[in-house]
Amino acid sequence: MRNLLLILQYNGANYHGSQVQKNGYTICEAVQDALEKIIGSRVPITACSRTDTGVHAKMFCVNFRTEKPILPQKLKNAMNFHLPWDIRVSDCREADLSFHSRYDAVGKKYVYKIWNADYENPFLKDMALHYPWKIDEELLNRACQYYIGTHDFSAFCSAQSDIEDKVRTVTECSVTRNGDVVEFTVCGDGFLHNMVRIMVGTLLGVNEGKWTPEDIESIINSKDRSKAGVTAKACGLYLWEVFYK
Amino acid sequence: MRNLLLILQYNGANYHGSQVQKNGYTICEAVQDALEKIIGSRVPITACSRTDTGVHAKMFCVNFRTEKPILPQKLKNAMNFHLPWDIRVSDCREADLSFHSRYDAVGKKYVYKIWNADYENPFLKDMALHYPWKIDEELLNRACQYYIGTHDFSAFCSAQSDIEDKVRTVTECSVTRNGDVVEFTVCGDGFLHNMVRIMVGTLLGVNEGKWTPEDIESIINSKDRSKAGVTAKACGLYLWEVFYK
Repeated sequence: MRNLLLILQYNGANYHGSQVQKNGYTICEAVQDALEKIIGSRVPITACSRTDTGVHAKMFCVNFRTEKPILPQKLKNAMNFHLPWDIRVSDCREADLSFHSRYDAVGKKYVYKIWNADYENPFLKDMALHYPWKIDEELLNRACQYYIGTHDFSAFCSAQSDIEDKVRTVTECSVTRNGDVVEFTVCGDGFLHNMVRIMVGTLLGVNEGKWTPEDIESIINSKDRSKAGVTAKACGLYLWEVFYK
Repeated sequence: MRNLLLILQYNGANYHGSQVQKNGYTICEAVQDALEKIIGSRVPITACSRTDTGVHAKMFCVNFRTEKPILPQKLKNAMNFHLPWDIRVSDCREADLSFHSRYDAVGKKYVYKIWNADYENPFLKDMALHYPWKIDEELLNRACQYYIGTHDFSAFCSAQSDIEDKVRTVTECSVTRNGDVVEFTVCGDGFLHNMVRIMVGTLLGVNEGKWTPEDIESIINSKDRSKAGVTAKACGLYLWEVFYK
């Protein structure tokens, strides 16, 4: 038995998220469809994470078991032949039999991309949030400091989530500008449902003067979803990197 | 009478180039359609340049005359309401009555974008050339030096062109890499039909060992289109900036 690791990139605009579901076509279903054409049978796959409808990934790991002797480079090429254009395999490797894409992940990096101009960007359709009011990245970087550390992030978790332990550790958090593109980058050991998008929605509230950077601390301490900002649109969010030991 | 300048950005993937023609929908036709909805009548527009089917622009200038008292900022917003998503007005200004988008341009900058990995990029569909063989940017930068200067660029002009004077001055020319994205940048006083795309096709021939960097000099001197490389695909080309006095 072999355990094969596929590293994917995808533009999530046309998918109902990553996880297989009844109501729409998903990244994992497309991956299973392509694999089935190559392997000859439907194989279960294990994914590193879940991403929502419209969210993108620059690195998304899935692994699966097979007895087929196919070479990793051949599998990569065959997958890229059978997959839709908006899902690509950037790498394929033989993994230890014990490797698990989700349980072995020790951290993740997300990037949230914002097009910050008073007109939309014809090269970033569905790939960035269009936010026309000038972003003060120095102000937002001060706010970002309050996200760093180990906190109960209940205020930054979708109200629909039924997860119990909402304590997470954010190790890095910053806002950078390159011309009219502003990127919010966050690294941590794990993220709650909608956590990054609510962090961004709250930062944009700081930008609009609704809160001061210092208010982030009391919003976290409130553990109350209604005290934080809106959930920023999915189109700006990219799962950027998954860290393994 | 007023002379208004519109500065456009467009993703050219869905257009038959910039110039109005019978065989397909073009950038200038879309601009005239939107203007007509605002101004109330069809107005002739003057464009800085022509771009081919599938070519993009980060800056493309058009000007037109009108007696309507509409404010530039209002015209910009109205245009961005009526234009298709892949054409945007980034700026609109009142120009001198004598200003001419094409005749007053003293130079242009083009960027040709290449995705240099063995898998396609799901975020750059129709917005970069996919070139899977490793690009040696140091080698290509040596080749670029031979493009700089005032030359008869007949070897780098579409055979269909009926222009007579094929002498052009290239002031800057270089190749840069940012991860797996390689960009060829060229500035000059003017460009022949397909000139940038043939320059890129020839550089890729250098990358593949078909020619040495020094051979660029003799290809230019040949003034023979058949001696240069292929015309690289339109999707990688961006008119990046138009320079005025």
